[in-house]
Amino acid sequence: MEFNKVIRGAKREMNDEETVNNILDAGFLCHVAFQHQGQTMMIPTAYGRKENALYLHGSTKNFMMNQLLSDQTTCIAVTHLDGIVLARTLFDTSVNYRSVVLFGKAVLVEEENERMEGLKTITENIIKGRWNEVAVGTAQQLKATMVIKFIIETASAKIRNEGPKGDDEIKDEVWSGHIPLVIKALKPILDNKFGVELEMSESVKKYWEKNK
Amino acid sequence: MEFNKVIRGAKREMNDEETVNNILDAGFLCHVAFQHQGQTMMIPTAYGRKENALYLHGSTKNFMMNQLLSDQTTCIAVTHLDGIVLARTLFDTSVNYRSVVLFGKAVLVEEENERMEGLKTITENIIKGRWNEVAVGTAQQLKATMVIKFIIETASAKIRNEGPKGDDEIKDEVWSGHIPLVIKALKPILDNKFGVELEMSESVKKYWEKNK
Repeated sequence: MEFNKVIRGAKREMNDEETVNNILDAGFLCHVAFQHQGQTMMIPTAYGRKENALYLHGSTKNFMMNQLLSDQTTCIAVTHLDGIVLARTLFDTSVNYRSVVLFGKAVLVEEENERMEGLKTITENIIKGRWNEVAVGTAQQLKATMVIKFIIETASAKIRNEGPKGDDEIKDEVWSGHIPLVIKALKPILDNKFGVELEMSESVKKYWEKNK
Repeated sequence: MEFNKVIRGAKREMNDEETVNNILDAGFLCHVAFQHQGQTMMIPTAYGRKENALYLHGSTKNFMMNQLLSDQTTCIAVTHLDGIVLARTLFDTSVNYRSVVLFGKAVLVEEENERMEGLKTITENIIKGRWNEVAVGTAQQLKATMVIKFIIETASAKIRNEGPKGDDEIKDEVWSGHIPLVIKALKPILDNKFGVELEMSESVKKYWEKNK
């Protein structure tokens, strides 16, 4: 993994592999930007990281997946919004965030073991432990699923995680500071189409305990 | 505003202006994808919507802002992650979300009243009421700030907001359902560099009450 220099707001640059990986592993939703016939396009999708690559998946008919395989250098971003920073001027008003921008190319995963490993990486990144609780799907469903591996060539990370800056000279006494934002899980809702009351499985129980 | 057909997952398509605007107005962080010398790039930034346009802002030296003004058709996405959908197979495992993808072009806002209107639109979209509580900034700071208007040409919206689908035939009795995810505000943290204990301002109090 190589690193791209952050130009604007360089003091927020956090370009080391551990920081990049921590930001990637803290989420499972990325935005993928690519080109089709010269036009920039973007679609959000789920991912899971393994070493220096992100696994993505979708239908074999998925438009974006097929575009990504056209050998173009793709851009993937993962952004966590951590808070609103309210300074004593709007100019210094900001947000707290952890953000990674990646460049790289995608390759089709064809070998069956790695395909399963890719799907497991994505699933476990969304909710740890679920992989062992339910079946992957039928042979036909698996055949209709494309797994691709986005190999990170260059990365850049930015983090802002503090109160207001730059407004030190403002004498107006108005509340300033920051409002932390967090993603919380509400109580898991049982799918009642089966008509049976079931206990939460281990993965769901753990996820909820950790994120409620 | 015209609408783009959703190809994959067309049953999730929600292409009407009210839905698009509701999704846009429910957030303030977007991802902007653009091209520079043929390379796809993407950066997250704050926005505020007014009618069929999004206002963005940044330093006059901001690389992305300047690229957006090169007359290219840009792609902006706003995605709200609303939950994890855990079916009885991994194939039918999914997420709940509200998502908008926009295409359009950006123009520089030069007229002073509209520049202020643009900045107000962004600020009020982040936290309602803050605009009237603090000064915008000095004349010099304003001069260093670029306001651009991204005019939405085409849009598409997708929403998934339900429990698992497609796994009706699975007999394995394992918990399935969905885990709603929400963004919550934690207690606002006063900037203590001024050494005065201040009451939360109205905008902060209201934001916290609404989002805690």
